[in-house]
Amino acid sequence: MPRYKLLIEYDGGPFVGWQRQEQKRSVQGVLESALARFCLSPSAVMAAGRTDAGVHALGQVAHFDTLSEYSNETVRDALNFHLKPHPVSVVTAERVHERFHARFSATGRQYLYRITNRRAPPVLERGKTWWVAAPVVLDADAMQAAARELLGHHDFTTFRAKGCQAKSPMKTLDRLEITRVGEEIQVVAAARSFLHHQVRNMVGTLKLVGEGKWTPDQVRQALQARKREAGGATAPAEGLYLTGVSYEKAAS
Amino acid sequence: MPRYKLLIEYDGGPFVGWQRQEQKRSVQGVLESALARFCLSPSAVMAAGRTDAGVHALGQVAHFDTLSEYSNETVRDALNFHLKPHPVSVVTAERVHERFHARFSATGRQYLYRITNRRAPPVLERGKTWWVAAPVVLDADAMQAAARELLGHHDFTTFRAKGCQAKSPMKTLDRLEITRVGEEIQVVAAARSFLHHQVRNMVGTLKLVGEGKWTPDQVRQALQARKREAGGATAPAEGLYLTGVSYEKAAS
Repeated sequence: MPRYKLLIEYDGGPFVGWQRQEQKRSVQGVLESALARFCLSPSAVMAAGRTDAGVHALGQVAHFDTLSEYSNETVRDALNFHLKPHPVSVVTAERVHERFHARFSATGRQYLYRITNRRAPPVLERGKTWWVAAPVVLDADAMQAAARELLGHHDFTTFRAKGCQAKSPMKTLDRLEITRVGEEIQVVAAARSFLHHQVRNMVGTLKLVGEGKWTPDQVRQALQARKREAGGATAPAEGLYLTGVSYEKAAS
Repeated sequence: MPRYKLLIEYDGGPFVGWQRQEQKRSVQGVLESALARFCLSPSAVMAAGRTDAGVHALGQVAHFDTLSEYSNETVRDALNFHLKPHPVSVVTAERVHERFHARFSATGRQYLYRITNRRAPPVLERGKTWWVAAPVVLDADAMQAAARELLGHHDFTTFRAKGCQAKSPMKTLDRLEITRVGEEIQVVAAARSFLHHQVRNMVGTLKLVGEGKWTPDQVRQALQARKREAGGATAPAEGLYLTGVSYEKAAS
């Protein structure tokens, strides 16, 4: 049965998240509806990362099976046609081997978190960035120093949502980079996989360092405490973007 | 009487444009309402550029007078407080000399026009960019060559809206630069002032060059024809941003 891999963008604002929920608008739901209008498909649309309500995607990856074969361009254009008016866009569609699985074949996930750090509210980017109002000027260098404490293989229980379904709290954080671009602080995070809310909980904690309320040392101590209460508050969903998913070359 | 200069951002999407209109939501209207809630003001809020419906601003400048004096920070924060929930943000407020006039003291205006040139619809940037769908790949170099034909002092009747109220169609175009940034074509335009729809009409014409339908030579001929029918269609409002207004140092 033909399997297709999709590269997807969406504005998470109007959705309850990736995952289908009865009577509610989900990204998976509108994609599956678009797929049903376009062709017969015996499968659900499976994503690499089940983003939460309000979380955006610039590089979500998903797959599904169809009964007949179509060109990649037909799949992309037909889905985009039927996705209207929802803010979900199929950037590319690609016929892949049936062993490819968007979630289980993934070897890495990359996220971007955007913070707008100024006095005036961001209006053109409303819902697309976390507004941390000046006069507090976030210290990106201190945030980067603290971020280094989180790199590598750790028990990330401190940054794990209560309802997280992962079997283990052990994860390997490969990248956590903080850059100031004018009035914006950008946090780039990469790992094979993340715990539920891990990026937002890390960002909420790094923000305390940026404000000068915490030292990088305290972030290490929070990590070592291995309890959620030891970490900072969860940063809001609206600043978070799933920017990419990696696969072994052979997998697709 | 104290006069204040504002630097303003807005999402033009929900507005009928800058200018106040009875019973309709205008940027000027919501700013004047916010001002009325904050303090007594005998004056209207006057802008450097009266942007059209759907046109955005990253650097609009306006001024108004008040009866009492306030700190710059108070003016900015109070206006932003009362502007909620409208997508209008006062980035800075500054006490200026009463000879300063946002419109008449301005010595230059800068605009950005954004085109997203790819097959998939832009959803995170919906309403913020003109979607020109691939497979047509716009040729930015050809567009730049055509743009050079428009630089300098000319009769811009070909790029002037029917209802334009300017006394003369003569304008001096100082900059018209086309850059490709990945899937986006950015057009930057600068002049002392522009005719109504001039930037959008120039962009609509340059797009024909980008598509290979027109040559740069034909753009020069269109300019020389001095009639609106000789130019390309008006590019949509949603891609246009007023990015800045210049003043003589002494004026503020």
